Amino acid sequence: MQTRSEHDLLGDRDVPASAYYGVHTLRALENFPITGTPISVYPDLVDALAAIKHAAAEANHQLGLLDAGKAAAIGRACEEIRAGRLHDQFVVDVIQGGAGTSTNMNANEVIANRALELMGHAKGDYQHLHPNEDVNLGQSTNDVYPSALKLATYTGIFRLVDAMAYLRRAFEAKAEEFKDVLKMGRTQLQDAVPMTLGQEFSTYAVMLAEDEERLKEAARLICEINLGATAIGTGINTHPQYAARVSRLLAGLTGIPVVTAPNLVEATQDCGAFVQLSGVLKRVAVKLSKTCNDLRLLSSGPRAGFGEINLPPMQAGSSIMPGKVNPVIPEVVNQIAFEVIGNDTTVTFAAEAGQLQLNAFEPIIAHSLFKSVAHLTQGCRVLADRCVSGITANRDHLRASIERSIGIVTALNPYIGYANATDIAAAAHASGRGVAEIVLERGLMSAEALAEALRPESLTQPRPLPAH
Amino acid sequence: MQTRSEHDLLGDRDVPASAYYGVHTLRALENFPITGTPISVYPDLVDALAAIKHAAAEANHQLGLLDAGKAAAIGRACEEIRAGRLHDQFVVDVIQGGAGTSTNMNANEVIANRALELMGHAKGDYQHLHPNEDVNLGQSTNDVYPSALKLATYTGIFRLVDAMAYLRRAFEAKAEEFKDVLKMGRTQLQDAVPMTLGQEFSTYAVMLAEDEERLKEAARLICEINLGATAIGTGINTHPQYAARVSRLLAGLTGIPVVTAPNLVEATQDCGAFVQLSGVLKRVAVKLSKTCNDLRLLSSGPRAGFGEINLPPMQAGSSIMPGKVNPVIPEVVNQIAFEVIGNDTTVTFAAEAGQLQLNAFEPIIAHSLFKSVAHLTQGCRVLADRCVSGITANRDHLRASIERSIGIVTALNPYIGYANATDIAAAAHASGRGVAEIVLERGLMSAEALAEALRPESLTQPRPLPAH
Amino acid sequence: MQTRSEHDLLGDRDVPASAYYGVHTLRALENFPITGTPISVYPDLVDALAAIKHAAAEANHQLGLLDAGKAAAIGRACEEIRAGRLHDQFVVDVIQGGAGTSTNMNANEVIANRALELMGHAKGDYQHLHPNEDVNLGQSTNDVYPSALKLATYTGIFRLVDAMAYLRRAFEAKAEEFKDVLKMGRTQLQDAVPMTLGQEFSTYAVMLAEDEERLKEAARLICEINLGATAIGTGINTHPQYAARVSRLLAGLTGIPVVTAPNLVEATQDCGAFVQLSGVLKRVAVKLSKTCNDLRLLSSGPRAGFGEINLPPMQAGSSIMPGKVNPVIPEVVNQIAFEVIGNDTTVTFAAEAGQLQLNAFEPIIAHSLFKSVAHLTQGCRVLADRCVSGITANRDHLRASIERSIGIVTALNPYIGYANATDIAAAAHASGRGVAEIVLERGLMSAEALAEALRPESLTQPRPLPAH
Amino acid sequence: MQTRSEHDLLGDRDVPASAYYGVHTLRALENFPITGTPISVYPDLVDALAAIKHAAAEANHQLGLLDAGKAAAIGRACEEIRAGRLHDQFVVDVIQGGAGTSTNMNANEVIANRALELMGHAKGDYQHLHPNEDVNLGQSTNDVYPSALKLATYTGIFRLVDAMAYLRRAFEAKAEEFKDVLKMGRTQLQDAVPMTLGQEFSTYAVMLAEDEERLKEAARLICEINLGATAIGTGINTHPQYAARVSRLLAGLTGIPVVTAPNLVEATQDCGAFVQLSGVLKRVAVKLSKTCNDLRLLSSGPRAGFGEINLPPMQAGSSIMPGKVNPVIPEVVNQIAFEVIGNDTTVTFAAEAGQLQLNAFEPIIAHSLFKSVAHLTQGCRVLADRCVSGITANRDHLRASIERSIGIVTALNPYIGYANATDIAAAAHASGRGVAEIVLERGLMSAEALAEALRPESLTQPRPLPAH
Repeated sequence: MQTRSEHDLLGDRDVPASAYYGVHTLRALENFPITGTPISVYPDLVDALAAIKHAAAEANHQLGLLDAGKAAAIGRACEEIRAGRLHDQFVVDVIQGGAGTSTNMNANEVIANRALELMGHAKGDYQHLHPNEDVNLGQSTNDVYPSALKLATYTGIFRLVDAMAYLRRAFEAKAEEFKDVLKMGRTQLQDAVPMTLGQEFSTYAVMLAEDEERLKEAARLICEINLGATAIGTGINTHPQYAARVSRLLAGLTGIPVVTAPNLVEATQDCGAFVQLSGVLKRVAVKLSKTCNDLRLLSSGPRAGFGEINLPPMQAGSSIMPGKVNPVIPEVVNQIAFEVIGNDTTVTFAAEAGQLQLNAFEPIIAHSLFKSVAHLTQGCRVLADRCVSGITANRDHLRASIERSIGIVTALNPYIGYANATDIAAAAHASGRGVAEIVLERGLMSAEALAEALRPESLTQPRPLPAH
Repeated sequence: MQTRSEHDLLGDRDVPASAYYGVHTLRALENFPITGTPISVYPDLVDALAAIKHAAAEANHQLGLLDAGKAAAIGRACEEIRAGRLHDQFVVDVIQGGAGTSTNMNANEVIANRALELMGHAKGDYQHLHPNEDVNLGQSTNDVYPSALKLATYTGIFRLVDAMAYLRRAFEAKAEEFKDVLKMGRTQLQDAVPMTLGQEFSTYAVMLAEDEERLKEAARLICEINLGATAIGTGINTHPQYAARVSRLLAGLTGIPVVTAPNLVEATQDCGAFVQLSGVLKRVAVKLSKTCNDLRLLSSGPRAGFGEINLPPMQAGSSIMPGKVNPVIPEVVNQIAFEVIGNDTTVTFAAEAGQLQLNAFEPIIAHSLFKSVAHLTQGCRVLADRCVSGITANRDHLRASIERSIGIVTALNPYIGYANATDIAAAAHASGRGVAEIVLERGLMSAEALAEALRPESLTQPRPLPAH
Repeated sequence: MQTRSEHDLLGDRDVPASAYYGVHTLRALENFPITGTPISVYPDLVDALAAIKHAAAEANHQLGLLDAGKAAAIGRACEEIRAGRLHDQFVVDVIQGGAGTSTNMNANEVIANRALELMGHAKGDYQHLHPNEDVNLGQSTNDVYPSALKLATYTGIFRLVDAMAYLRRAFEAKAEEFKDVLKMGRTQLQDAVPMTLGQEFSTYAVMLAEDEERLKEAARLICEINLGATAIGTGINTHPQYAARVSRLLAGLTGIPVVTAPNLVEATQDCGAFVQLSGVLKRVAVKLSKTCNDLRLLSSGPRAGFGEINLPPMQAGSSIMPGKVNPVIPEVVNQIAFEVIGNDTTVTFAAEAGQLQLNAFEPIIAHSLFKSVAHLTQGCRVLADRCVSGITANRDHLRASIERSIGIVTALNPYIGYANATDIAAAAHASGRGVAEIVLERGLMSAEALAEALRPESLTQPRPLPAH
Repeated sequence: MQTRSEHDLLGDRDVPASAYYGVHTLRALENFPITGTPISVYPDLVDALAAIKHAAAEANHQLGLLDAGKAAAIGRACEEIRAGRLHDQFVVDVIQGGAGTSTNMNANEVIANRALELMGHAKGDYQHLHPNEDVNLGQSTNDVYPSALKLATYTGIFRLVDAMAYLRRAFEAKAEEFKDVLKMGRTQLQDAVPMTLGQEFSTYAVMLAEDEERLKEAARLICEINLGATAIGTGINTHPQYAARVSRLLAGLTGIPVVTAPNLVEATQDCGAFVQLSGVLKRVAVKLSKTCNDLRLLSSGPRAGFGEINLPPMQAGSSIMPGKVNPVIPEVVNQIAFEVIGNDTTVTFAAEAGQLQLNAFEPIIAHSLFKSVAHLTQGCRVLADRCVSGITANRDHLRASIERSIGIVTALNPYIGYANATDIAAAAHASGRGVAEIVLERGLMSAEALAEALRPESLTQPRPLPAH
């Protein structure tokens, strides 16, 4: 293998001649053989790094600190990366020490070497354009890395919001389809009072709608970036106008409404926005998991379960039980939810572990958030396409469950009182008989009044009541 | 002991004659001997229940469903409770099964019996005023209980926000006091670049200010209540105008801007607002814990540690080591934070466990949130009064740390380049000598330029730089 | 109020004359107004402290370091405490800073003052017997406190093991009672293959039996104590024979087989045994919660659910739905489980936060473990007495579910093959017909062979099979 | 692309002709596009599946249920897989619904098709050897999958134990190297009493040694497998001698001492062993993280920190701060620990979510455990090689810290009393003077007695003491 020699504070090392990364990245490869997964698995992060480097070069050029040739070459290299090229050169492990320094160094080196090529120089010929002195000019890992995480996460959040909206519309369509299907509602798994299957499905849609809003709020919080903070937030080695300028340029390049945080020392060490976002992702996960639990419960059976709805069969359910079909799609979404909840614990631990002017554990925060966002996105789409949109209702069974229910006695409370109603319920339960026939038998209500009180429309919404 | 007999679906039971609670509460006492702590330990919850019962009675009266005498008696009983009376009658365990039914029943019974007394009847004489048929009219545990949690939590949150603001002001005062104290900033526990101690303390204030905003946002979310939902959100057994009216009355009684949730079926089963709030409390905890970690680190020593600041001594630190003083106040806040983070796990589990039209596990959610809010509130006040406000700086030691630091070489980057600066740093580290003398010895900068580059004002903020 | 004056490194303070605690405890009361709950709420901890102080006094006396009179007085005071007296003098908050120093100081002071009384001196007359120099002789909070936690936890664990065994026997009795009740087993909430209800209940017993063993293992680990370590494990200010002697005396006093840890520096800082125990408690919680989930599911209905078993009704289930009975006992156990799981998160955070020679956060570890152990103990007993022992089976319904099931087709696999069996299952599902009639109709098996293959005894255990 | 047609209960599908997997795997690929990571990333799992299929075929053959030709072909295919071939055919996603059915089906299909080839048949020619009827004979996903997880995890655990022992030896070597280096011990980050750096490092070794034992215990628990349980533990469709025989054969094939669980119904639904293992992994993580926190703290500086030890520099620490070297290796291990702790939350949630006769969420449990074990293994090796083994001590600085310490006054307690010692400490702190000179000045001890009391050997271990 052909190599070139590069130098750092530990000495000289041979780097593959074809590599766009350099000696700092090489050290990191050796130091962090943890997961085997390179950061290129998160293209949003790579793109975000390139956008930041591009904006920084332009800002420094405008401020007279970087010459036009260098700035242009850096800009073109970054554009190529954002167009999808050279991602395979982002090779450091997703779990890495050093507060993201290796990720930032990896970006600096790849961009420098590609820019050198564009300027007609050989890779590694850093006297013409230097990874640290030029590509990283006015920057530090400690402002570049968290800012890149925020950009990448922002992009991911809106992809997730789209997937949630897609799933929400699938639930809304079912809510409409099932709006006249009467069924027993349940509390604490016990028969309660009637409702429509449409009402039941609409709640899943409403939950998603609310969570979409919460995610958008969290997204707004992560638009505050700390570019210009450099090492610890004091802005050492930046031009006084740099912070404002680079944010504006970055917003222009990416379309993401980033703004400079008001206190850069605070912004450099604080992971609050990531904790908040992780908490909201956990909220999404909790509610998706609850929804999937419900779908699995309502479709339990086919004969010894609730049997109220049917999930579309997606694969043979068992290697031993012929014909068995399982709720595999809700199950996979449950598992994504459990992963997201675990990721939140990881984020919490990592955030709490920050010390003084920096949180050195942002790489694991990034890794956790990226996984949560990506897997939830896939889960929502799979759940919509491979489960919700194919759900059917067992209408006859549902209607029968109302007719034989004891819970409808609640609707008679205002007419016969809680005490009488309790007796009726007990009698029905003991005898297996219906509530209506016992009420009539005991002469507590007339047949007409009873029929009116038990009209479906009376059962699933407020109605005029007798005085008490 | 004198008793009176009461009846429920399981039969007759003797209740102490002096008790305002009744048979349902008695059953709960027997069923839930878990913690030994009664719900009266959360007076905000008791008050919230009373406010809801009051508003419901008034709404039902206005809608012609409850006569004036009953409504007035219920109202007076509730006012007494909100004035602090009868709290000792709220006896069911803070950890209880039944989705809060026992708490709601406890409230219904206490209010009914006190109202009966006010009407001139004996306790237990329920034909004149019935806990379920009158006090609970148009209500269900499933709308009363979560609404009460929200009211109680709302009150608690703003008490916490006040405590956080109080702590924030203590940090702001210290930031002002220390604004000229130059020191070494640190990243990854390694000496980085200079900053002021004032900048360091201001970050703690800014973090708190941000978290105050997040808590207020979370408070807004929990203002959506589901009164009028009754059992499962369909509003069965409520008047069509009840939901809107009871919210309005409740807002008037409490001063809390509650509104009726747009979809009551969803609102009855969803614990998203509690998960969100718990996530924000966890965020507060994480940042307070990080702050306390920093305070403990900066005050480590007195001789073999960082020794930058002194926390005021609050008690003898050791039963064996004479004269030892420990950072006991930050330590107790750390522990509160760990408890809050654990409570968030509990809330998450409980929220995920909801099924179909109800979450039966709201009592443990309530218990967890109430503890988190109360303990954080105490923690903030204790931290302000017994630690932050008494902190002093070891100014001489801090100044010396700048003078002997290697990290100031970063400030020379723009003048001598990253490579030269790396060599200087290595030479300083190896020899124990100062950066400035090596730079001068090597003739890399003039004495004047060096002095200018290392002026304190140049080190802690952006400044004009040479072109690159 | 009458007072006496006491002195510490911060100066003089008035202590109530009647108080057995002294100035150090007073400081702690002022410093830690967090929960309002004093450590006396954990009598096992108070007793453990007294046992340790007793053993230490005796050991020091035997080694010639403490005179007979002092040792005897200390011993008697400790015996009184272990008999239940003076517990109200242990007043410091359960959440406290200072690594347990305040708890240890509280014990030293109460014991010293009671011993002074027994010696005929006034409380506070410390020149005759000093809390730190005599009661704490050869000790430090850093060995006393963790050792006391271990003793207290050990006691609690075996109380929990007894409660688990009690619950296990309740399940075993039901497993025996239901051993002939055939029912459909379920995987992924879908009908699977037959089993007996007795098999189902026996699993809950087996799970508990296994967890009892795991708890006993964890108990063995916490028998390693670090008395003799003093401040950091080096044993400074202890006699060379003290550590071994005090362990032996303590084991004799308490009947708990404590031993001295092999490396006292490690033992003083390590919280591994607590993390392990908390993990095992979490395991118990997870399985109890799963068991309760099952009980709630199997008893869902009464008409629109699984309806397989009936839990004994313990209280009215609803303030609005007459006659509704809910699974309140399993629900409260679920919530205890969620609390225990959250406590494990707290313990994990606190354990990770230890630094260098000590973990300052043991008080919150103690608080979390004590709650988990106590609440699980109560939960097991309540679940046994108020739920499991009263469970009945709906035998007719269960038998019918087998007869109409599709899942029994699995039993025909070895005779007709997986592919044929899949077709039969599909035909049964589509038509609503029974598996057996379709098999006979298609001539795949003779009536005799079919009857033999579907004999109940054939379905719930291995059996001879045709060759493949 | 050439294809072959395969059939399942949903109809016909074209499978790539070259694929060893079949239609069931194809469905799973479409259903679970979650992470993009195939199960082949866990070769231990693939090998375990092959070992189980091999043992099952052999057991069935011995019991007369599977003919010799089929058994031999299956056995050879499995051996090939265990030799590392065909792993790329294990393509289903690591996060998948269906309780592992897709993983089991994937294995059945790959083995069947490879066996068919070995028998001279075409892939897909299942009438000669069928994935479900032959490869899966006497099995179900519900016994195969958890058993495979246990085998795979067992292998991983011992790889981890080896890595921990490797790290432990690195710490032991340093403890020996530093055994005479005296330093100040610290509690609560405050200077406490003297110890040796060797004592400090030996604790890290002891912690690891203990955790190695705990892991081995957890490994023993996961040796209980449920092969022979089939669908729900009743052993339906297995020969009465199958369960015992297949365990014995599997133990022989793998060298892992697997045994059949005593109650297969329980064993099939219980995830307790995984929860326990995850708890122990969390314990390891907590202690490794604490160790890394200590290493980072002790090496803080170089000038404004503790500066007691030096970690070997592994890479340039900063893109902006020249010469900065960071503790990147401990930092990456901290992050692994945070991930493992989060994984434990995931495992806990998934385990609690099991219902009735099965836990459908074992795939996420597997994924979590595999990651935890693998990353901890890498972390231990990296920490040993790239950090611990290169640590050096700043001996002069450590010696000086003892000489100027106030904490050594503790050693004088037995001679001058706690009260006098407290005064001395206060005087030293206020004046900046040394303890010894103040003691002498006040005439509290003779110079000889003082020198003897402060001899290094007296400070770091128990010693004879004056009577009290």
